[in-house]
Amino acid sequence: MREFDLIARLFSPLATNPAARGLKDDAAVLMPPAGQELIFTKDMLAADVHFFSDDPPETIAAKLVRVNLSDIAAMGGTPIGVLFGAGLTGHESDLWLEQFAHGMADDLARFQVALLGGDTISGLDRLTLSLTAIGHVAPGQALSRSGARAGDDLYVSGQVGDAALGLQALLRGDSTAAEITRYRMPEPRLALGQALIGSATAAADVSDGLLADAGHLADASGLAVRIDLALVPAAALDERGRLAAATAGDDYELVFSAPASASDSVLRLSERLGVKLSKIGDFRSGSGVEVIGFNGKRLSVDRLGYQHG
Amino acid sequence: MREFDLIARLFSPLATNPAARGLKDDAAVLMPPAGQELIFTKDMLAADVHFFSDDPPETIAAKLVRVNLSDIAAMGGTPIGVLFGAGLTGHESDLWLEQFAHGMADDLARFQVALLGGDTISGLDRLTLSLTAIGHVAPGQALSRSGARAGDDLYVSGQVGDAALGLQALLRGDSTAAEITRYRMPEPRLALGQALIGSATAAADVSDGLLADAGHLADASGLAVRIDLALVPAAALDERGRLAAATAGDDYELVFSAPASASDSVLRLSERLGVKLSKIGDFRSGSGVEVIGFNGKRLSVDRLGYQHG
Repeated sequence: MREFDLIARLFSPLATNPAARGLKDDAAVLMPPAGQELIFTKDMLAADVHFFSDDPPETIAAKLVRVNLSDIAAMGGTPIGVLFGAGLTGHESDLWLEQFAHGMADDLARFQVALLGGDTISGLDRLTLSLTAIGHVAPGQALSRSGARAGDDLYVSGQVGDAALGLQALLRGDSTAAEITRYRMPEPRLALGQALIGSATAAADVSDGLLADAGHLADASGLAVRIDLALVPAAALDERGRLAAATAGDDYELVFSAPASASDSVLRLSERLGVKLSKIGDFRSGSGVEVIGFNGKRLSVDRLGYQHG
Repeated sequence: MREFDLIARLFSPLATNPAARGLKDDAAVLMPPAGQELIFTKDMLAADVHFFSDDPPETIAAKLVRVNLSDIAAMGGTPIGVLFGAGLTGHESDLWLEQFAHGMADDLARFQVALLGGDTISGLDRLTLSLTAIGHVAPGQALSRSGARAGDDLYVSGQVGDAALGLQALLRGDSTAAEITRYRMPEPRLALGQALIGSATAAADVSDGLLADAGHLADASGLAVRIDLALVPAAALDERGRLAAATAGDDYELVFSAPASASDSVLRLSERLGVKLSKIGDFRSGSGVEVIGFNGKRLSVDRLGYQHG
């Protein structure tokens, strides 16, 4: 079939790492970095579930790479390589496939990640993409969701809610909004994740929504988390908009816990990396997510975020 | 959504390896075996492209695991773990998902492979499954497709064409044929692949068809391969049926090359493992696949196998 040959022709040149064996063998063979633990993550994205069919092919490829690298960032890891699963309909044009491959090539180069292998299937009803990313981290140093302690502060990087604004712009037919790039091409916080090792006690990336993902840290750590909406970094200035930003997904910022004693080092880290890090709440004994409104009182919240389809 | 909770409930108990972190973190963290190279492979299977929607869920899970382990077998590797991507329609019943998880649990236990992580998405038009398998092999020892030398013999394990007979039985509505199990639950030749290190010069698994996959060895090695149809192990005894078996896919036997000097060691290996290994041809300078018919003359062949959809 046409698409198999084209995929082979387009992706073989990207598989420059000898471990990939030019994508010509049954599998990739890689000598892992000595003495390092390996990190594995896998995400699937489907057309008109996780991205729009008419998104630029380059940004679909970038999103696929970046949501996976974001998981590695949340563990404090350094990415090594990816395996790419292309589930095609067979109706993708040559140009579309070329642009997709170009987008992936750009991101692999940008994040210094090797294409190690993959699989192409065709005949699907909708484009369904899968990526497995492999990273490494010093033994025992990987950040997890479960390390928060009572009294730890809660932080988030960057600004949340922008991806949702981009999505809303696309839904209302506005393709010029600046936030669309945040939705289509999230920035995995790799340098931040690596730098947080030693300071953060727990971390996750914001994919389901800030409240939901902070709640995941609390659950995994056996604690409650309190979030002060007035401190949440977002474009929206009013409480309603701030809550929307805190329950929107797809930002791929890092949410993490750190003890009060690490406050100065988190601040220095923010300056060194040029990444805004906002202290937005804290962890305490108990369970669940408590949201504090602009009036300083507990706010009743319908939902913390959403589950990806 | 219902299916996300159920998948979490069904698969968390399978993730018994500490590296999987109970599937509760962003990614798995694994210390790889010291001094070993790692093998990575990824395969996708879609309903009514690679399996039948009404196949037993247990065998769909088994096929997903086994086609990936077969790639590791073809490299001479030992599997370590898998990451599982479930692309659901959302219409799978609880019972279906339970049976699928049961089938995967059985195979993970059988092949001593850890479930390290994965991703679930829903809202697809057809069930689309993805698996990444990780294995290990001693440095520099992995079998490849490209090591055959002129004069090497060509071997295949077991018997080819059985999976296609199983498929044909299903297509004509016969669900009792013994070969259906060969189609639904192929046996990855892991012990054989590992034992071939040191004897075989090149190897691949028979997924596209014996002629096609032997051709892949020849191409990758810069050689021609000659295959004697009368020597091909298959249920069919006549030339026509033998040719059908040699161009059918999905058997997941191993096809490999070995020098004449290794002939005795291959024979001993066959006896030790209880696996039939048939010498069916040889490699020579040139290119392409030459098929010898029952009359000892070159046979003109329309196609060598098929590309998986």
